[in-house]
Amino acid sequence: MAFSEFRPLDENSLIEYIKATPSLSSRISDTYDGLKVKEVGDGNLNFVYIVLAPSGSFVIKQALPYVRCIGDSWPMTKDRAYFEATALKEHGALCPQHVPQVYHFDRTMSLIGMRYLEPPHIILRKGLVAGIEYPFLAEHMSDYMAKTLFYTSLLFRSTTEHKRAVAEFCGNVEMCRLTEQVVFSDPYKVSEYNRWTSPYLDRDAEALREDNILKLEVAELKSKFCERAQALIHGDLHTSSVMVTQDSTQVIDSEFAFYGPMGYDIGAFIGNLILAFFAQDGHAAGQGIDRKIYKEWLLKTIEETWNLFHQKFTALWDENKNGSGEAYLPAIYNNPELQKSVQEKYMKELFHDTLGFGAAKMIRRIVGVAHVEDFESIKEASIRADCERRALELAKTLLKKRRDFVCVSDVVSAVKQVP
Amino acid sequence: MAFSEFRPLDENSLIEYIKATPSLSSRISDTYDGLKVKEVGDGNLNFVYIVLAPSGSFVIKQALPYVRCIGDSWPMTKDRAYFEATALKEHGALCPQHVPQVYHFDRTMSLIGMRYLEPPHIILRKGLVAGIEYPFLAEHMSDYMAKTLFYTSLLFRSTTEHKRAVAEFCGNVEMCRLTEQVVFSDPYKVSEYNRWTSPYLDRDAEALREDNILKLEVAELKSKFCERAQALIHGDLHTSSVMVTQDSTQVIDSEFAFYGPMGYDIGAFIGNLILAFFAQDGHAAGQGIDRKIYKEWLLKTIEETWNLFHQKFTALWDENKNGSGEAYLPAIYNNPELQKSVQEKYMKELFHDTLGFGAAKMIRRIVGVAHVEDFESIKEASIRADCERRALELAKTLLKKRRDFVCVSDVVSAVKQVP
Repeated sequence: MAFSEFRPLDENSLIEYIKATPSLSSRISDTYDGLKVKEVGDGNLNFVYIVLAPSGSFVIKQALPYVRCIGDSWPMTKDRAYFEATALKEHGALCPQHVPQVYHFDRTMSLIGMRYLEPPHIILRKGLVAGIEYPFLAEHMSDYMAKTLFYTSLLFRSTTEHKRAVAEFCGNVEMCRLTEQVVFSDPYKVSEYNRWTSPYLDRDAEALREDNILKLEVAELKSKFCERAQALIHGDLHTSSVMVTQDSTQVIDSEFAFYGPMGYDIGAFIGNLILAFFAQDGHAAGQGIDRKIYKEWLLKTIEETWNLFHQKFTALWDENKNGSGEAYLPAIYNNPELQKSVQEKYMKELFHDTLGFGAAKMIRRIVGVAHVEDFESIKEASIRADCERRALELAKTLLKKRRDFVCVSDVVSAVKQVP
Repeated sequence: MAFSEFRPLDENSLIEYIKATPSLSSRISDTYDGLKVKEVGDGNLNFVYIVLAPSGSFVIKQALPYVRCIGDSWPMTKDRAYFEATALKEHGALCPQHVPQVYHFDRTMSLIGMRYLEPPHIILRKGLVAGIEYPFLAEHMSDYMAKTLFYTSLLFRSTTEHKRAVAEFCGNVEMCRLTEQVVFSDPYKVSEYNRWTSPYLDRDAEALREDNILKLEVAELKSKFCERAQALIHGDLHTSSVMVTQDSTQVIDSEFAFYGPMGYDIGAFIGNLILAFFAQDGHAAGQGIDRKIYKEWLLKTIEETWNLFHQKFTALWDENKNGSGEAYLPAIYNNPELQKSVQEKYMKELFHDTLGFGAAKMIRRIVGVAHVEDFESIKEASIRADCERRALELAKTLLKKRRDFVCVSDVVSAVKQVP
């Protein structure tokens, strides 16, 4: 190891670090002629370096002890890198097709060396803003979510394995607290960090803070987020945590991972697809482009994501129903009719959790601290506000009435019917 | 410390241990003339010694690495003593009136030194079998449950404190697994450990194993037990975990403590009072005694336990609503109408959890491995079976229809209406 205590790297010290680290230097055959290092971290939190050599490549991600986009006035544990690396490795073992390989982790340096997702990989959100269809997106994401969530739940694990893992990820508490604040709290109160497309949405933001029924439902979701250790969730599975090409889908940035409710991951992904949907009219406006077909593709992708997830998740359950999972012992639940009822009940609750959490994630992106490029890229504020208001109205309905939705086509209908 | 590695004590080596342990020897002024040591562990798990001296007294409880009543064929971690001591100290700090003081804990020896609950303290269950009224029982137990559950929940704690504590008690996983097996699994399948009053209840036991709706509801409760870290619960709060006199109520035996659903504790206590109720006709039968008034007292105690708990718990919530608890931030939930809705929603779910868990605890005491003296002391098997069957019928109704019960007087009515 190059350094015995934490220090932030730069392009130069990074090369020294690589030279002293066999698990990295071997990836580029220990040759430094023609090596290129580029800092590309455009996220809110970390420094990210692409390391390219003639004989190989990788990415280095280093967590600093504060939020990068705000600076050292907002401190945040750099230990998040440990949980990110642990979750990447665990999810990667369960679903290697959709999680980049981790080559190296250095806890002292809060540094992860991992696969470089080469061009034409781009951040999914940028693709959605550009109107690019990804034919395998629903297939891949449903695969990722079904595997990572099923195999880390009590449907597959023993209580002993589960409690050990839950205890370990309790250590990622600072990231959980950040989510609690920015997703479940700030949007429903006056907060210095909140912003929205003003003055257009002033009244809408105020209405959220006065909506008692909404706040009651948000409290229930927050309590589930804080208390229910259902599976090892990614914890931040929006469309900027996914990199894509036409045939590859890779999930990154799992520093928020912990044992929480499965619906939080599925909801984050679907909620962000719905945001992308409502942004399309803004992208189309005045640019002489028609996003009608693209909007249809987005709705189809939303529908397929849930339906394929449901199918794959229950298939895994069926395959493993006589396995080591301790939630439903075969000696008790081994008759087909009961097994079916059990799954229906489980999936119904998960569906409603998904809608609730998805809606909460949508709301916070419109009136909270962190916004999304889907809307931010709509330059004309009044048009942007119209798009955002429609997304907000749908999110409020989803959150408050989620138990009335029976299947995902009901959700798609509701999306289409927003005036 | 007397011993550097674990060894089971006996009456003689215990005295050597006390002499070498100032926190114990000081309790009896380091004088050993007239010292009496008596082994009294009548529970299923541990060895318990009463140490009496002219100048003081205490109790020594030592956990052995197996289940005492079965022997070393059923191994069980002696580390349960650590969690028992930790929970006793934590609950004791929150509610010193109803938790015996811990004088000494030795993790190596799995040994707790604690207050001796002097006569006329007896195990509550024995008092209920004997038909003794305890005028302060509901008052005291509601106080204990309101304080221990409220103060260890996110209604009072920060997320940071909560996750740290949850992680620690994840270590008590063997005890959690034991509960999962004997409460949520064995009664619903064929198990070598199950027993019931045969042949009278053969058909009733079989009916449980064939009741799909019941098994579906049990699965939901088990999942809450395994996944929901709501508060530091006692984990085994039946009427043999409480010692009483006419004016003292002391909760002991918290080796099953962990962060779980609050309703599990409240349900355990109320469920065991309902068992006591249904046993009364058996105690009365053929003994020329009338337990009619006593049964009324039991029903009143059940009703008051919940109602006082509700009152005390929500009072603590009101008192602390601007405190450090992170579940309901005052900036969001600070209007009286919303605060009322939030509490109603929370208490309604807790009530239904209480009924579900209470019913599950009743069922397992009738058809599972560990039975209760309430019924066991009814010598005539056919009479015992009648009492047990009535309790079982009520438990099934409570478990399956718990969401239809609005208040505890509905429960009391249902108890009275069992044919």
